[in-house]
Amino acid sequence: MHLHDTIAAISTPPGTGAIALLRLSGPKAEAIARAVSGSLPAAIPERTTVRGVFHDADGRIDDGLLTLFRGPRSYTGQDVAELAVHGSPYIQQRLMEALLAAGARLALPGEFTQRAFLNRKLDLSQAEAVADLIASQSAAQHRLALQQMRGGFGRRIEDLRQQLIDFAALIELELDFSEEDVEFAKRPELIALIGRITGICSELIESFRYGNAVRQGVPVAIVGAPNSGKSTLLNALLQEDRAIVSDIPGTTRDTVEETITIGGVLFRFIDTAGIRRTDDAVEKLGIERSYKKATDAAIVVLLGDASIMNEQAFALETALLRERIGEGPVIVPVLNKRDVAPMRAAGTLAISAKQGEGLMELKERFLALVNATAAPGDIVVTNARHVDALTKARQALIDARDAIEQGIGGELLAVDLRRAQQHLGEITGRITPDDLLGSIFGRFCIGK
Amino acid sequence: MHLHDTIAAISTPPGTGAIALLRLSGPKAEAIARAVSGSLPAAIPERTTVRGVFHDADGRIDDGLLTLFRGPRSYTGQDVAELAVHGSPYIQQRLMEALLAAGARLALPGEFTQRAFLNRKLDLSQAEAVADLIASQSAAQHRLALQQMRGGFGRRIEDLRQQLIDFAALIELELDFSEEDVEFAKRPELIALIGRITGICSELIESFRYGNAVRQGVPVAIVGAPNSGKSTLLNALLQEDRAIVSDIPGTTRDTVEETITIGGVLFRFIDTAGIRRTDDAVEKLGIERSYKKATDAAIVVLLGDASIMNEQAFALETALLRERIGEGPVIVPVLNKRDVAPMRAAGTLAISAKQGEGLMELKERFLALVNATAAPGDIVVTNARHVDALTKARQALIDARDAIEQGIGGELLAVDLRRAQQHLGEITGRITPDDLLGSIFGRFCIGK
Repeated sequence: MHLHDTIAAISTPPGTGAIALLRLSGPKAEAIARAVSGSLPAAIPERTTVRGVFHDADGRIDDGLLTLFRGPRSYTGQDVAELAVHGSPYIQQRLMEALLAAGARLALPGEFTQRAFLNRKLDLSQAEAVADLIASQSAAQHRLALQQMRGGFGRRIEDLRQQLIDFAALIELELDFSEEDVEFAKRPELIALIGRITGICSELIESFRYGNAVRQGVPVAIVGAPNSGKSTLLNALLQEDRAIVSDIPGTTRDTVEETITIGGVLFRFIDTAGIRRTDDAVEKLGIERSYKKATDAAIVVLLGDASIMNEQAFALETALLRERIGEGPVIVPVLNKRDVAPMRAAGTLAISAKQGEGLMELKERFLALVNATAAPGDIVVTNARHVDALTKARQALIDARDAIEQGIGGELLAVDLRRAQQHLGEITGRITPDDLLGSIFGRFCIGK
Repeated sequence: MHLHDTIAAISTPPGTGAIALLRLSGPKAEAIARAVSGSLPAAIPERTTVRGVFHDADGRIDDGLLTLFRGPRSYTGQDVAELAVHGSPYIQQRLMEALLAAGARLALPGEFTQRAFLNRKLDLSQAEAVADLIASQSAAQHRLALQQMRGGFGRRIEDLRQQLIDFAALIELELDFSEEDVEFAKRPELIALIGRITGICSELIESFRYGNAVRQGVPVAIVGAPNSGKSTLLNALLQEDRAIVSDIPGTTRDTVEETITIGGVLFRFIDTAGIRRTDDAVEKLGIERSYKKATDAAIVVLLGDASIMNEQAFALETALLRERIGEGPVIVPVLNKRDVAPMRAAGTLAISAKQGEGLMELKERFLALVNATAAPGDIVVTNARHVDALTKARQALIDARDAIEQGIGGELLAVDLRRAQQHLGEITGRITPDDLLGSIFGRFCIGK
């Protein structure tokens, strides 16, 4: 994790296009760019685009443009050089090799952003938001990532942490004067502070339910008897608004799922096997898996076949489903095949997946459910790592409060407060084990 | 084909990456960039990168960088604005929509380069080379495209055309004085000029055999009896150096073929069905197709099974193949399975596709064959359109020479010379029907 060498990467998406950008960051950025360029002026003003003829030992590679950004006024805080060339994979690859031959090192995934973090251009939560921003597939994902990248969340956490540090300093001071039995840190004030901060932690942890749904897509399972029309419904929904599928490391999921953006929110539709009473052992296993998927979903569409069911049977099926999946997911009962059967049921949407009837109402229902669970606060946590740190910080604060209430001495209280502020510090990266940084930046794409 | 509106496109490869570039070209480039940007200085010097906060009516899209290039000192010769943002497909799409809402028009494929051509920044052969350069997959392709993009070919053609125009002017002058029976254009000089230019045309046409092989890949067919090891050989060759496959419109081919770069030259390996004597009608058809593919290839590898053939039988098979495919392709006889059979034959490579033995020698043979047919001249034609124009120009010149030799009057001679210089002019775009431009630039990727 040193900053002394100069890294290089192709920063534009892989493949063929009109233009590709290669980027260097490090003390030798300009020298390496010059080593592969002909026809450059002797002095290049920063942030000014000049023409360059890029070459390697074998000859000319391409005519392109070069821009220098001098640290600290650059993305990474170091000297950065950007080389723009024709977007041929061959040219990109050959110029990349020329940069390496001239002394650059191939950047690791996320290493440019990691350098920005190490140079204090971004806090860790902002750096993580850069990866989220690049991976964002929906308006809501994008909005949350942009908000986090602009630093509001990090500043809020740093503010809480500073308050804890200030108080902890007073506690530590008491320890120095322990023989005199003074109390610099007023206990009622400390309890009030702890109450305020645990409250904020809880609010932020709670916001993750929405934040995670937005980031990963709100999971929707469609369940129902075989032939109730599950696949037809899924295809009808997909036909209109299939989401962009990204292939950034870290965004791929274990199972193949279809995603759709509705009203700017990403929904993740989960395929399930048909549910019915059976004695077949293999089929039973499949049905168990369907229930498991439904249990993990935020929304479960129970699809009934209006042409073969009555209202009572469908109500029974709904109750049975609730029993199997618990109180977590919202069940949306839907009767399909309204084009061939007149059956209706109270509180139940009637659709025809085949004819595309009633799909608009169904989507509005999905969106309304998400908006109803939307976080009320202005800051939404989208990152499981942050939730983990917040949860640990909250627990340390609860321990501290208990310690005060039980009249336990300053030493243990100081330990609890230190734990709390360290966990908060992990979020912004003020306190970061090296392996944590590796796992965070390893999920980036190369070139960022 | 007007230049008065402002076009916009995503210019970096499609997909997800660290950075994406959107480009505007036209009189309103700066105004539209400003319409979607906050926090810009009042005056932005050209070619200077400034920070911009890009937004649409719904709010902030991304924090990025903006660079202005003012015409005529830009790629298109018009005002150009480049917006660099985080490479999320969502951000790219939304910023693109914001640019369109602010008055830009979505660029057609190749429209930036078309504008460069219309503004005389590039001649037509250079513009075509830009597309070739972006599509280039091998060192040789890249070298030819770069050479053509730098304008040597266009200048050569323009030079020939100018000589024809000068001479034609004299002929036309004679026509004005036709009643006086003067001869401003000396016929022997004209015949010498025509001879020189037809010679150059022929040389350039001839160079296309190499140029096309380099651009499309040198076609190599592997033929042989069933079980001689054709697939094993193909896989063994592919395992080491599979070429980058591009998906630019115009580079896809009718049949799925495997490409490999050997020594900087792209080879295109063509799969064929096994060849043997048979009475089965369906199999016969397949074998006919194999012979047809071999006939169209530049190199035909005849693969024999050393474990079941003797030298005489293999020589017979080679002679039979030559009879079927004619004199065009080079036949490379190869005996496979040298690991299990000792049989050797004069002038025949012995390999083991399975053990990977002898493959290096085989590749060297391929490369030597290509280099032996390489065009001797410094300019290589890679474009079928250019060959077509050169062929027509040469025919018109031959007609002109015949007209002179037959003492036919100046009117018809003038027509022939005009035809010749028009066909040459089509290459550089001095003379271009609108539909030709459409078909040329339509093969580009969007954003170039």
